[in-house]
Amino acid sequence: MNFSLAKSIEILERTPDVIITMLQNISSDWISNNEGGETWSVYDIVGHLIHAEKTDWIARMEIILSDKPDKTFEPFDRFAQFENCKGKSLSQLLDTFKAVRKMNIEHLLSKKLTNENMEEKGFHPSLGEVSLSQLLATWTVHDLNHIAQISRVMAKQYKAEVGAWEAYLKILQL
Amino acid sequence: MNFSLAKSIEILERTPDVIITMLQNISSDWISNNEGGETWSVYDIVGHLIHAEKTDWIARMEIILSDKPDKTFEPFDRFAQFENCKGKSLSQLLDTFKAVRKMNIEHLLSKKLTNENMEEKGFHPSLGEVSLSQLLATWTVHDLNHIAQISRVMAKQYKAEVGAWEAYLKILQL
Repeated sequence: MNFSLAKSIEILERTPDVIITMLQNISSDWISNNEGGETWSVYDIVGHLIHAEKTDWIARMEIILSDKPDKTFEPFDRFAQFENCKGKSLSQLLDTFKAVRKMNIEHLLSKKLTNENMEEKGFHPSLGEVSLSQLLATWTVHDLNHIAQISRVMAKQYKAEVGAWEAYLKILQL
Repeated sequence: MNFSLAKSIEILERTPDVIITMLQNISSDWISNNEGGETWSVYDIVGHLIHAEKTDWIARMEIILSDKPDKTFEPFDRFAQFENCKGKSLSQLLDTFKAVRKMNIEHLLSKKLTNENMEEKGFHPSLGEVSLSQLLATWTVHDLNHIAQISRVMAKQYKAEVGAWEAYLKILQL
């Protein structure tokens, strides 16, 4: 599949509702446990998605589309959610994610991006030169990555409960 | 987390709506492409979930709870969906999955299963002895496994479009 803004937005606009459908009002065991050690809980993942909405995708798009001579992105903080989410319920985080995503899609559409815009470049501090279409494709895949991660973290809570079936459930071996 | 029927049902009752939210009315590229070779498309995965509802979970529960001297399960056909789904739209499959899942949860609840029931055993043709709670935990993890798989199959369609970010997106390396 080639990159398409319309097809990317199909995913981006669904993700908050997908995650809300998975998690709203579910027992806290499913959302507060992690995969062991320093891994993230479902709650942490939702916090990460919010932080990315606020500091990553749109901010980097603006750098790419700007006239700045230096189009190097700010590094993304993968741990900001631990501070930012303190004292908030999962339900509050889900509402926030839905609201900032909606705002970001509206902002994205307001740009009326052309095919030429999609080829414009920015500079990732670790990965080097990247294009706007690659940023937007990554935003899309990032959503799917974290939906899969949420599923995996939840599945792992039952790892000891499935008995011999563990051998057939790939998600428990990741 | 220990097995809990109530916590399992929290997942089981959400899965059809999660998948409908992900897929309803989405562009066919997202649902008809696979991961290459003999792998499954999103459409195939939904067909598989329906076949499991119809022939696996409840049928095996009934064998475990029965008085039969031989409690060996029928082997599950992992390829039945290719025949069963012929000519059906994804939207039809999603409706069917939602309907059969609802019926199966009602059936499960009607059994008023006790903790003693949960320890009752059946015989899996390849895996050997398994308990009812293991079957129900597996049903739950199986849902999460296929939500993650749907996310991965969709993400892979953009593998060539994310450029250097591929290195950061674990879902593209699975």
